[in-house]
Formats: sequence, structure tokens, C-alpha cells
Amino acid sequence: MNAPAPPLLYQHLADDVASMIASGTLRPGDKLPSLREMRTRRQVSLSTVTEAFRVLEDRGLIEARPQSGFYVRRRPPLPLPAQSTPSSEPALVSVNALLWRYMQISREVSPTFGSAVPAPELFPTGQLQKLLGDITRRQSHLISDYGRTAGLDSLRRQIARRALGWGGRWSADDIIVTNGCIEALSLCLRAVTQAGDVVAIESPTYFGLLQLLETHGVKALEIPTHPVTGISLEALELATRHGQVKACILTPNFSNPLGSLMPENRKRELVELLARRNVPLIEDDIYGEFYFGRERPLPAKAFDTTGNVLYCASFTKIISPGLRVGWVCGGRYQAKLEVLKYINSFTTPALMQQTIAQFLESGFDRHIRRLRRACADQVEQTMEGVARWLPSGAKLNPPQGGYVLWVELPEGVDSVRLMEDAYGQGISVAPGALFSAREGFNSCVRLSCGSPWTPEQALAMRRLGELVSQQLAGERPLRARA
Amino acid sequence: MNAPAPPLLYQHLADDVASMIASGTLRPGDKLPSLREMRTRRQVSLSTVTEAFRVLEDRGLIEARPQSGFYVRRRPPLPLPAQSTPSSEPALVSVNALLWRYMQISREVSPTFGSAVPAPELFPTGQLQKLLGDITRRQSHLISDYGRTAGLDSLRRQIARRALGWGGRWSADDIIVTNGCIEALSLCLRAVTQAGDVVAIESPTYFGLLQLLETHGVKALEIPTHPVTGISLEALELATRHGQVKACILTPNFSNPLGSLMPENRKRELVELLARRNVPLIEDDIYGEFYFGRERPLPAKAFDTTGNVLYCASFTKIISPGLRVGWVCGGRYQAKLEVLKYINSFTTPALMQQTIAQFLESGFDRHIRRLRRACADQVEQTMEGVARWLPSGAKLNPPQGGYVLWVELPEGVDSVRLMEDAYGQGISVAPGALFSAREGFNSCVRLSCGSPWTPEQALAMRRLGELVSQQLAGERPLRARA
Repeated sequence: MNAPAPPLLYQHLADDVASMIASGTLRPGDKLPSLREMRTRRQVSLSTVTEAFRVLEDRGLIEARPQSGFYVRRRPPLPLPAQSTPSSEPALVSVNALLWRYMQISREVSPTFGSAVPAPELFPTGQLQKLLGDITRRQSHLISDYGRTAGLDSLRRQIARRALGWGGRWSADDIIVTNGCIEALSLCLRAVTQAGDVVAIESPTYFGLLQLLETHGVKALEIPTHPVTGISLEALELATRHGQVKACILTPNFSNPLGSLMPENRKRELVELLARRNVPLIEDDIYGEFYFGRERPLPAKAFDTTGNVLYCASFTKIISPGLRVGWVCGGRYQAKLEVLKYINSFTTPALMQQTIAQFLESGFDRHIRRLRRACADQVEQTMEGVARWLPSGAKLNPPQGGYVLWVELPEGVDSVRLMEDAYGQGISVAPGALFSAREGFNSCVRLSCGSPWTPEQALAMRRLGELVSQQLAGERPLRARA
Repeated sequence: MNAPAPPLLYQHLADDVASMIASGTLRPGDKLPSLREMRTRRQVSLSTVTEAFRVLEDRGLIEARPQSGFYVRRRPPLPLPAQSTPSSEPALVSVNALLWRYMQISREVSPTFGSAVPAPELFPTGQLQKLLGDITRRQSHLISDYGRTAGLDSLRRQIARRALGWGGRWSADDIIVTNGCIEALSLCLRAVTQAGDVVAIESPTYFGLLQLLETHGVKALEIPTHPVTGISLEALELATRHGQVKACILTPNFSNPLGSLMPENRKRELVELLARRNVPLIEDDIYGEFYFGRERPLPAKAFDTTGNVLYCASFTKIISPGLRVGWVCGGRYQAKLEVLKYINSFTTPALMQQTIAQFLESGFDRHIRRLRRACADQVEQTMEGVARWLPSGAKLNPPQGGYVLWVELPEGVDSVRLMEDAYGQGISVAPGALFSAREGFNSCVRLSCGSPWTPEQALAMRRLGELVSQQLAGERPLRARA
């Protein structure tokens, strides 16, 4: 047996490992080298290593697993935020100063935790360059023609083929290609509502959708929404009893910002309820491919037997933001949607459509698996960062998929001030008030996990934690930009 | 002196020349070969040629010009349609069965006289292919990034630089790039109106604009419009007296379908009137480059000193329909427009923007001169075709620019029936009823002159004339497709 290790030596080793964990070099769930390996690598005694690991265990940073060794500890889950309790009165949304300010900040500051889009390096840019080059050279009519309003048949066939994967029986004619998902949602909204109508939405909900409602002059009725299971069907049932609600727009798979996932039976109930009430359901499935589980969750559309569900999705977040191609499968509103597309933008650039059609044929499956894994990983690490660096009292909703986190900060924190303070440090976050027609959720923030976790991200999270603590302590932060 | 020519010989020659004129091989204004050349070419006597030319003169097909020779005669202008007299009550537009039907027909039948877009062969597709290929290879971030909402600086700088040509003092920041002109118009409409508002427009006006008004839930107030000088300022002055009109959308340069051009002093008066009344002017200048005169006409924006004019235009009809890039210079509504663009489509594909920016730097000037000449030529020939083949009683508005003709057919002609009958013959035309919120103008048609004039076009015009005559005679046409 060796003599007890000199205190400074094991302490030094423990600090080294702790800083590797803090910086993300060692990540939650990573296995540490064995005691013997560590001894050899660091050229210290076995008891020094043993003592260092004990210190790290005491500090809650690592854990022993029987017959396996030591692992960087996964943090215990933070408490969940409660189901939302929005006002039961519909409200007109207004394009506000806050969104304008958020846009300015997003433009000036590198994404950090701001924009909800995977980092550029996660997209198959090289493959797309090659395809685009080939198509540009060989298919010149895609440049000189307007093309068809509904979109290229090649792409629409691919979309229909992929829908088969979850049992969707679509033909190319059931699909209209759009300029991203946002145009799809906008066309649907026009197809089923008129100015002054009331539309039921999740609470919180994506700010872009809120603003879309405003530009259409429809009122938002925010429905209580559970962070894990999504919109409350009980509340929706009540809200749609008297014919006031003219449409419902939801993201049943990995809503933005909550990351909630409606269980299948609830999706079925939802579709049945709305069909019975004759309230069209506009489904936003833009995050459907970003599942963390084994299988892609079914969209609500899968339970639609009456054509009452208008299904919207996009390739923007899964293939490339630069191409701007989305689509809609409009159920019984299909003909109306095609007229609206004709009026709204006539066509979607055919070159972009063809590029995506060919990528879907070869290359996509491999790419999407990688992208999905990367996002799941990044979410995991960001959650760890939140648990580590944000002050206690924060609540966090571990998302079921997607790549955004919804964090409820301790009471008294003003997320708009946090956005400004963070901007002062070169960090962007989306304040909770953006996600409600009534500027509720002001103690919440949405953190995007679109970028790979790096020491810089860890540092940014640490600074964010400091800014929250300063607010809680009533201090003003330093305004220096990082 | 030769003996008198045998009657059959000169008749034969005259018929030959007449059929060359009918088919478009010889075109209005073309010089005929001299008497002597003709004698040599046809190996006939000089008196045969002289006699044949006299016959052609008598038939009104050719004319002698002193000291110059014989020319294919330009037809005397048809009478102008009168200034429109729309209802003075604003009306809600509705997306109607007629537009849907027109869309179907446009999709199935080659353009003939339908869609208002230059033919694919008039666009610089080869140059664009090369640019797109280069940019795709070298600037991969244009694929993997969303890019800025307002658009690429390179393109916005080029647009600002070109505006200098007519005295516009814009910087890149004054411009937002959009998905075609139609998105620009849509954003402007949202920026300055709310559902239920009244918007003043030309009469007749582009059906896409009417439908846009409908989707925004605003009411169209059609203002009397003169076929040559555009909207009646007197009527507009009256209409805007009591604060009911919240915005005005006009195409002062070569309106679609009239082809009218507001004289400069009237543009100035228009801008001053609307500024005084605090009614924003949304200017659609999509046809501004298609002038037949020596100089590009000024846009109304050139007279704007208060930021009250929101200027919209596009590269779709002058560089390529497939790229779908337009822009807006929003005056004092610029910040609001940028938020609306963010909500409506986030960004315009950067690859397309960069391609256009580089084409504007080199190649554009030469191309646009050629395109302008081709369109002017095609308009001229189509007008000749109308004069020749449509029954007497038709009125025609010779446009000042652009490439559409507005033809008022003899009273009693139903242009919707004409559209259907023409479709039966494989010909597309846009019926007048599409161009009014109240389905007026039913005896008018819009004929696009976007395609080069060919014997097929001449034949289509002749068939159109027959269909009109059949309607006037109360006959049903044969339904066989050509």
C-alpha cells in the first residue's frame, strides 16, 4: 500500500479534471480513464488518483458505476415549469418594439443561444453545392421558367414518398411547395380565417407565429400547455364549445419553445375533437425529424380522416436554411391554398426545389441521422450547462426533441433585461415575453442548442448565470462586450 | 415599255406578298424590295411588279413613301377605349372561380397571349447558369446560412447604384430584398393598412393585386383611369377628401393591363396630393424598364420628399423568373417592413441574390436593351395582328411600354366565354373580368406580347378573331383543340 498522497497533488489532479468537465472537454456520461490509466498518464501514485476521484465524487462531478468505473455525472433533472395558465380572453397581437430589438441583437451577436437554427457546419453544404452546380448546368429551364405554382413534381413525389414512412398516403398533387414553413403557415391561416377571427394556440408559442397572427388581423387565444404533453385538450375542448374559435395552430411534435411532445392518443383525440367542432387544425411539424427517441413521432395529420388537418413542414432546418423550401399538405383546403400560393408568391424557385428533390433521393437519410444525433447531444450538454451555471431555483423542461430549451428563471428575474445584459457580453438569448401575445413569461428564456457545445458556450452559460445572480442580488452588470 | 402584264401573273405576285404579310414574314414598316429587285428576283416584267404593288396598295397592305419605296403599311390606330368609370363604392374582393379557372388554363396551354411574362428565350439563362455555378462553388455560406433579413449588401448596393440613374438617392439600408415584387407589395400593404381599410387602385388593375387586397381583408376602391395618362387625379382627389382611403397602390409606369404611363407632372401632383392627405402611396414599378421611348420614365418615388412612397420592383421580369427576387424601398415605413419581412419569409435565398448582384455588375445593361427592344417589337406586331384579325369595333390601347395589350371587344362579347372558346383551340387569353373587383370589363381581354411573333401567333390571333365573330353572330364555336 502506498503512503497517503500529498494533499496538493490529489487536489491539483481533481481540479484539472473538474476544469475539463466545466469546459466541456469531458462531458456528462463520459467515462473517465481507469485508476491505473490515470496513474500512468499523470505519473502519480494510485492513491493520489483514488483521492482525487473521491474529491470529485464529493463535489458531485463524477460517479462510480459498479463493474464499470467512473463517469462524469449527469445532473439530477431540474424541476419542470408548471403548465401555463394564460388569460382566457383572446388578444390582438402587435408587432412590438421587443421583437425589433431581438432582431437587432440576433443580427449583431453570433447565435450563442439566440436563433433557433442548427449551426451552418451541421448542414450538408458540400453535397448541396455539388448538386446545385450539376442542376444549374444541366437543367437551365429551372432558371428561365416560372415553373408551376404547386411546385416541381420531382420534389412533391419525394415528399409523398417520405410521408409513407409514417403511414401518410399522399400523392404529389396533395402537396404545395412553399417558401419555407412560414409561408405554408401563412397560406393556411388565410385559407381558414378572416380578420377578426379567434385562433387557438399553445402557450408559450413561437413568436413568429404570433406575429403572423397579427399581420392577418386574427386574435390569439392562448391555451394552457403542459411542458411535457403539450396543449391541454380539456382547455381546448372548453374553448371550442361555442364556435368562437375558427382555427387552431399547433406544433404537436417538439413545440418551440417548450419542446413538448403530444402522446399519440392525445393527438388522435385532438384531431377528432377539432373535426367534430369543424375547427381546422393547422399543424406545424417543422421539428418532427428532430426526435431523441427511437422513432419519428407521428404527426397529428396521421389521424386525419376528414381533410381537416393542414400539415406544414420545411427543409430549412433539416437540409439548408439558404434554400428556403417548405411545403403544405392542405387536406380539403388544397385548391384554395394553391390559389393563395399563386397570389402570395406565384412559385418557389425551381432550382432550389430540384436540389432538395435530388438530395432526398441520395444523401438525406445519412445526413439527417447525423444532424439528429448532434442536436440531441447539444441539448444534453446545454441542459448540463444550465444545471451547472444557472442559479438554483431555475426550472427546466427537458425537451423530447428539437434543439431549444425553455428555462424558467427564479421569480423576479426580468428576461428582457437579461437579454440586454447578455447582449452587453456578446451573448444572445430570446426573452420569454416574445412567446406570448400578452408578454407573459417574463421570467423565462429560450436557449437555442443549435451550435456544438464548446468551451465558449460553457463560458457564455456561466456568464448568463452570473447575470441572473446579479439581477437577483439587485446589482447592475458590467456593460463591457466580451 | 412592256406590254400590260398577264392578269394572273401580277395577281399571283400580289397574293404571295399578301400572304407573307399575313404570316408575319413581312412586317408592318418593313421595306419591300424595289421594283427592279422584285423584277429580277421573281423573273417577271417590271409592269407585273408595278401592277402587283398597285393591287397591294389598293388592298391597304402596302404604302409608297416618297423617295424611299414601298413599305408594309402600318395599320391606322384603332380607337382608344374610354377612361374607366368604376363604381364609387369600395368593394371587398373575393378569390373567385374565374381566377382558379384561368390558372388551370394557363397551366395547360402554352402562354400564347395569357401569362404576362417574357418568353424563356428572352432571358440571359446561359450567363446566369455560369454565375450561379461559380457562386455555388465559391460562396458556400450562401447555402448554409439564413443570411440577413433585409438582404445581401452586395445586391442592395447594386440596386441603390442603379436608382442613381433616375436620381434616386438610396443607400443599401434603404432597401429590403423580397421574394419577387408580389411579396414587396404584400409587405407594404401590411405596413400601412389594417383589415377593413379602403385602398384606392387603378381600374382596371392587375388581378394578382386584387387578390392580394382580398387576402388582406381590405376593400378596393377603383378609381377612373385613362388608358394613356393613367389614374384620374381629379377622381383620386375627391376619393381621398374624407379620410376613408388609407392607402393607394398604383403602377404609374406601364400599368398592367392598360399600359398607361402617367406624365411626369401628374406623378408629381400625385405624390404631393397623397403626402398632403397623409395617404401612403405603394408604387409598383415592375414594368419601369420596359419603356418604348428614349429614356426610362421616372417613378413617382422620384418626387417623394417625405418618405410617403413605398417603392416596389423586381428582377423577375427583367432578369429571370426562376430566381424570384424583388425589392422594396419603404421610405418612412422601412423599419416596419423589415420586421414584416422577418415574419413573412425571414430571408430571400442568398444564392439568388448574389447571382443577380453579379449580373447587374456585368451583363445586365446589354441584356436589358435587347429585352426592351424585343418586347417593343412584339407589342407592335401583336397590335398589327389585333388590327388585322379582330373584327371591326374592337378598341385598343397602344401601350407606352411593357408587353401587354388591353383590347376592348365590340359590345356583347363575353370575354370569359372567349377564354373558354380559345382554350378549346389551345390559346390562352386573360378575360377582362379578372381585372376588376366587381367583374366589370367583361368585353375586354388582356393579350400578353411576351413571346416572339411567329406564324403560330398570327394563326392564334386569326382564330381569336373568328371566335369573337362567332360570338357576335350568335354561333357556337367548334370545340376541337388545335
